[in-house]
Parts: sequence; structure tokens; C-alpha cells
Amino acid sequence: MAEPLKVGLAGLGTVGTSVVQLLERGRDKLMARCGRAIEIAAVSARSRGKKRGVDLKHFRWVADPVELARDPSIDVLVEVIGGAGNPAKAAVETALSCGKAVVTANKALLAHHGQKLAALAESRKVALNFEASVGGGIPIVKTLREGLNGDTITRIYGILNGTCNYILSRMEQDRLAFVDCLREAQRLGYAEADPSFDVEGYDTAQKLSILASLAFGTELDPEAIYVEGISSITLADLDAADELGYRVKLLGVAVKTEAGIEQRVHPTMVPKESAIAQVMGVTNAVTIDAAGLAPITLVGPGAGGMATASAVVADLADIARGVRNAPFGRPVARMTAIRKAPMQQHEGGYYINLLARDRPGTAATIARRLAQQDISLESIVQRHGAGAPGTSPSGRSGEPVPVIMITYATSEDAVRRALSAVRRDRVVSGRPQVIRIEKN
Amino acid sequence: MAEPLKVGLAGLGTVGTSVVQLLERGRDKLMARCGRAIEIAAVSARSRGKKRGVDLKHFRWVADPVELARDPSIDVLVEVIGGAGNPAKAAVETALSCGKAVVTANKALLAHHGQKLAALAESRKVALNFEASVGGGIPIVKTLREGLNGDTITRIYGILNGTCNYILSRMEQDRLAFVDCLREAQRLGYAEADPSFDVEGYDTAQKLSILASLAFGTELDPEAIYVEGISSITLADLDAADELGYRVKLLGVAVKTEAGIEQRVHPTMVPKESAIAQVMGVTNAVTIDAAGLAPITLVGPGAGGMATASAVVADLADIARGVRNAPFGRPVARMTAIRKAPMQQHEGGYYINLLARDRPGTAATIARRLAQQDISLESIVQRHGAGAPGTSPSGRSGEPVPVIMITYATSEDAVRRALSAVRRDRVVSGRPQVIRIEKN
Repeated sequence: MAEPLKVGLAGLGTVGTSVVQLLERGRDKLMARCGRAIEIAAVSARSRGKKRGVDLKHFRWVADPVELARDPSIDVLVEVIGGAGNPAKAAVETALSCGKAVVTANKALLAHHGQKLAALAESRKVALNFEASVGGGIPIVKTLREGLNGDTITRIYGILNGTCNYILSRMEQDRLAFVDCLREAQRLGYAEADPSFDVEGYDTAQKLSILASLAFGTELDPEAIYVEGISSITLADLDAADELGYRVKLLGVAVKTEAGIEQRVHPTMVPKESAIAQVMGVTNAVTIDAAGLAPITLVGPGAGGMATASAVVADLADIARGVRNAPFGRPVARMTAIRKAPMQQHEGGYYINLLARDRPGTAATIARRLAQQDISLESIVQRHGAGAPGTSPSGRSGEPVPVIMITYATSEDAVRRALSAVRRDRVVSGRPQVIRIEKN
Repeated sequence: MAEPLKVGLAGLGTVGTSVVQLLERGRDKLMARCGRAIEIAAVSARSRGKKRGVDLKHFRWVADPVELARDPSIDVLVEVIGGAGNPAKAAVETALSCGKAVVTANKALLAHHGQKLAALAESRKVALNFEASVGGGIPIVKTLREGLNGDTITRIYGILNGTCNYILSRMEQDRLAFVDCLREAQRLGYAEADPSFDVEGYDTAQKLSILASLAFGTELDPEAIYVEGISSITLADLDAADELGYRVKLLGVAVKTEAGIEQRVHPTMVPKESAIAQVMGVTNAVTIDAAGLAPITLVGPGAGGMATASAVVADLADIARGVRNAPFGRPVARMTAIRKAPMQQHEGGYYINLLARDRPGTAATIARRLAQQDISLESIVQRHGAGAPGTSPSGRSGEPVPVIMITYATSEDAVRRALSAVRRDRVVSGRPQVIRIEKN
């Protein structure tokens, strides 16, 4: 029987304590699967005294995670501290520099420094595994890195943030406003006190940058991602989507286009019958499109201590078995620079919801501005009132009339130009709502 | 740069020719991912002259697949001949015995001889990979073998046969009878001329035996599986399911119970809002339940040349990178004998659809027979006519009346006993339809 794999565990929050439990509970099974034991040798966290509900007294305590990383008694560092900066970054760098494998759940660290860390791991010939960084318990990293080697991926998209999906699901199912659902999510511990990282799409963007690199073999570039959150989504938008056969989800999308690789995070209308539209609550899902293949969708728990710990332990098991894959699926030298497709060139259908002033000529003005940008409409719905805006029999200027339009495929640029023109014409009230449509 | 991995390809049907295309198309990417090329050195198939739409002239032709398997110029045998017997079996055994890795898509071979083949691979220290044998392009084998090592799986179930799912989807969506949909499936090439292997559930059973072994670490035993096909399913059943909030799918289910491991294949009512219920057409899906975790569902193309070839190439890439996992996730010596839970002890809800004779006392007789077996009803629907059977005001014996019942959790044994008693009492016409309900 081989020597046990000795783990240094840095971080004892929900994920860290779940790792302790899962290694304990799965001891025999892991031994059978890996041919050796996986044992925690030492732990590190900010506060030693804190109650955590797990028995830590068998583990050596090392106050500084960087010290833990270079501890000669450990073979592998599990980093579940979080954050792109120190001490997480220093701990991971130190472990790799010392020739120790690393398992991390830290999406921020990977999004910002993934390439350098992968190069370091490569030069020291050690594993850098991060299944837990995206999609919690869904084995999406392994699937992209090892499961689909024969395929040419053309698009990858998914629901990568459980908080946003919980809020959008609650809004739709219980007919509540965004702010009420956000408050509920905070009460349940699904959202932070400062929710902007989740609801403004940045969490999704960090995860998307990791998936895009794995899918396309490109360098990571979280700054290359167009990001828009869900805080402007209203019940009226969800109702309109429903009526038109769609559901609204916050998606991260990375797609190969002629202009390069498009990476974007935004509220998206997806066809109601698509696999991704069915995913409700805090669940995550990722769909992979490959050339000549029907799409593959993976659905599962995107967060939570046990789901994330499960991914950490699977990564540890690979290391225990002596499996080492290139962190991003290929040697760092073969990761290609990303050719960024500008968002203005994005092409697709659009949902546009605007408040048209009820004045003569409004409909004609809107129609002309869209036509000038070669935008054709698949459908137009006027919510209240009888005639088209500005054609009310009385001829008098009344309340603004909501007008909902679905365009055929057009470009982001065209939509933006048309809507600024309409606003300059002063025929609409307020800012038009625009939601992109993603076809499956 | 390392030496190329030399492949011997046995079988040049849809899957084999797709492997040729995919290796050609993905050459550069595979090189980047594996650090070495993957090259076909020789091929073997029954008929050399047949038109296949791919250029085979660069490959050496070896008429006998067993000879190909022992050819010193190849490192790995890809077996896509199919069938549990020879030549597939002999070719795989020969390759492993000669110390060559094997990649196979052959579910029948694995279901019947998987353990012996795994032992042979283990003794020769070579890989035996079979991602393509279950779920086509869905990376379910890798997920079970490597992706969920930390978890204790409690249940795995899925839609594993695209033909059956296509037929059930068409029946429901286009309101067609089973035989018409079967004929359509045959016309489209989704079903064989002799469809019984698919529609009677045997294909699903072979795949389930592989998944169950990977999920629970048990020996393979396809004979331990209770199998029931879809040929008795009628539009009336699908309508009743719809009304009650369910959809009917042919599922393979393996579940840990107190009595042991239950393995069964049968038409199943699944809640309409479950991920698995959304899967329509030839698509496959597998859901994994693990202790303390929300379920994980993988959805994707279950068959077709490219989907299956994609799994074959991913397996080849693992071998090219020098990754070798135990075929069933653990050493053969640590695979435990399966403790088979008998089907009679299966517990769950049941849908029962019977034709009650319209005679006085029928309703009372049925109710008494169910009560004798401690079966409680969640709902009862009588399709036509006014009163309960046998309570028609005229008192005369009319047409049999369809009665649909949903039971609370009960046992297979109780349902079988109650229904035989009811049939002996001659209060029903024909054979009652019984469909098991699977909750998510």
C-alpha cells in the first residue's frame, strides 16, 4: 500500500469544514479508488477558536497559510480561503514553488492569475486542480479538460451563479420584485450583505473566463468579458418573456464567431423548452455546443459546502492516483491569445421594451429609426390601450404606452444606435429595456 | 515530442468512420492537449470494398480484428465492432493480453464480461476505457469514475436508450400510437428492423449494469436487472400521466435500499418539472443522487456516430497522456459482490389503470383487495361515465369503465397480489396497466 497523500487545508469556512467531513466519511471508498489514503495533516484559518462543528484536534494548526504551503509534511495544499489577493495567492504560489500540488476553489484567483499559476505548476510538474471553482458539484472542469477532447467546441454557456438564478426564479414563480427576492436571498444566506458581486454578474464573469479558456484553449482574460447584471430586470420583463415563449436567465456565454471569441454575461432570454430554461433556484447548469454534435448540458448544485467540497475531494483523488493534467487542458505555451470579438459586433435577436409617448407620429418615428439600422421585427406587442402609440382616436397625449418588440437577428451596434436615435427623438419615456436572446 | 500513439481501429461502421474523421479534424488540438499525436496505424472491418465516405487508403488493412489486436505496430485497440461474442471479445482479450490499451464502445461485451476484462487490463497494467458504451457523447463514465470520488452515491437513473425516448416523445407530442412511432423510428434509422432489443429494455439494462458498477463499486450483473419495455404503453397512459403531473420515460434505475441494490428498467412516471422529464427525442440523460448533495444531471446525445466517436477520442486522449484509471473506478479485487434487492420488495408509488366491469359491487371489490394489501390511494380518476363502476343508476351491466389510481408508497409485491386478486374476482376486463413512479 502506497503512502497516504498528506493534505494541508487552508481555509475552514463552509467548504473547508465540509472537506474535513467528506474525507472522513469517504475514507474507505477513497482508499479503494485511489489505492492510498487521503489524510489531512495540518489546517490553517484566520481564527483558531471559532466553533465549526467538526473535530479539528487531530490536525496540526499552522496559523499562516503560506507557512502551511511550504510545510514539508504536506504533499498537497487545498486552498479554500478565496480572493484574488493574499494570503490565498501567496499560499498557492508557495505550494507550487515548493513542488506541491494544489487544489483550489478560488475562481477569482484563477481568473486573474490562472495562467501564471498554471505555468508555475507546469514547471514544477505538479497538479493544479480547480473543479470546485466553477459550478460547485458539477464536474464541468473535468468534462472540458478531459471529457471532450475529440470535439471542437463552438459555444459554452450557462447559469453559473446560484444567487441570480434563485432571484429570477422567485420573481417569476412568486411574482415578487427584484429587491424583495434579493432580500429573501440574503435572509437565506444565498446572497452576501453586499450583493453586487453576484447580482451585477462579476462572479459569473470570473467563472466564464475559466470555462472559456478550457473550452477554446485560450488565455484567460476576465477583463475581455462584457458584463451586465440582473438588477434592472422587472416582473414586466419576465411576463413578456413568458408570453413570447422565453424565460430570463443570467447567462455567461462564450462563443466562437468570425470576429473572434465573444465573452459576455447578461440577462438572457432562452427558449422555455431548452434544458437551461428548466433550471430553477440555486441550481447551476452549463451547456456545451460542439461542431457536429447535439449539445451536452450538465445540471447540478452550483454552490454550498458539500457540493464544493465534493469537487475538491474528486480533485484530491486524481492527485492521489498520480493523475496530472495540464491545468487548462494544454501546456501554457500552447494557450493562444484571445482574439476578442467586440460586444458591438454581437449578433442575435433582441427583446426591446420601451415606454412610447402617446403622441402622433411616435410609432412612425420608432419604425423609421429601426429601419435605418436594418432591424426587422419578429413580433411587436403593445401592452395597454387600443391603437398604436400616437394613433389614439382622441389624438391627445396620454400616458406612455409600453411597447415590446422582438427583433430578428441584428447587431448590438444597430440596436444601440436605433435606441439612442429614438431617445433623441424624445418619443420614449425613460431608458428602454434591452434583453439579448440566446437560441439553443 | 513523444512518439505518436498508434491506434488499431476494429470496426468501420458509423462510429468507426466518425473516429477516423474526428482524429483527422482534431489533430492539432489533440497534439496540444496530449503532447503527442494520435494516429491510426491499421484498420479492420468485415468488408473491405464497402463505400464509407472516408479516405482509408493511408491505413494498413488487417482483415482479422484479432490479428489487428496483436499487431506489434499498434499501441491501442479501438473496438467498435459490437456484440458480446467474437470477434469483438477475442480482439479485446487479445489486445489486453498483449499489453495494449483498449477503448471500446461495446456495452454488451462490458455488461457480460466487464469484470474479467478489467482484471486482464489490471494485470497487464493497461487502460480499458469505455466512455462510449453508455450515453454516447455524455461523459458519464468519467464523471462516475473520477468526477464524484468524494460522494456516496445513493441512486443513479436515466434515459439510456434514444429509440425508446424518441418513441415516447413522439407518442405524446403528436398523439400517435406506439406502433406508428416505432415505424417512424425505423424509417429514420433510430430503430433496428428487429426493435425488441431497444424497446423491450435490454439495451438500457446493459448500460445500467455498467453505471451501477461504477456508482456502487459492485460487480457487474446484467441478469440481476428487472426489465420491462415500453411496448404496452398507450396514449391513454400518457394522457393520464399528463393529467396527474407526470411524464412517462423508460428509465434504468439503480438504487441502494436496505434490502440491497435494486436494478430495474421499466416505463416510469417522473414528475413533469424534473430535469429528466424535459428530455425529449433521442437525447439521453443521467441523474446521480449522492448523500447530502443536490442531484447532478447530465443531458446529451446518447447515440449517433459523432457523439459516440467523440467519447472514443476522449478515451484515446487519456491514454495518449498516460492516464490509466481502474476500468470500474477501483481494483477488481475491491469490487464487491452485488447484494440484489428483489423486485418484489421494490417500494414506491404506482399508477394503475384498469378496466372495471360496470356491475354492482365492482368498486367495493377493488377497494377491498387494495385494502387487504395495505395499499392507500393518493388519487383515483374514473375516465368516462358518471358514477363509480357498478353504481350506475340503471344498475345494468354496461361497458367496462377505465379507472386510474395513483397509490401512496407501497411494495411491488402488494400491488401484484392485489391485482391478481382483482382479476380472480373477475371485476376487471383484460390486464391492468401498472407503471412505477420515480420521485426526484
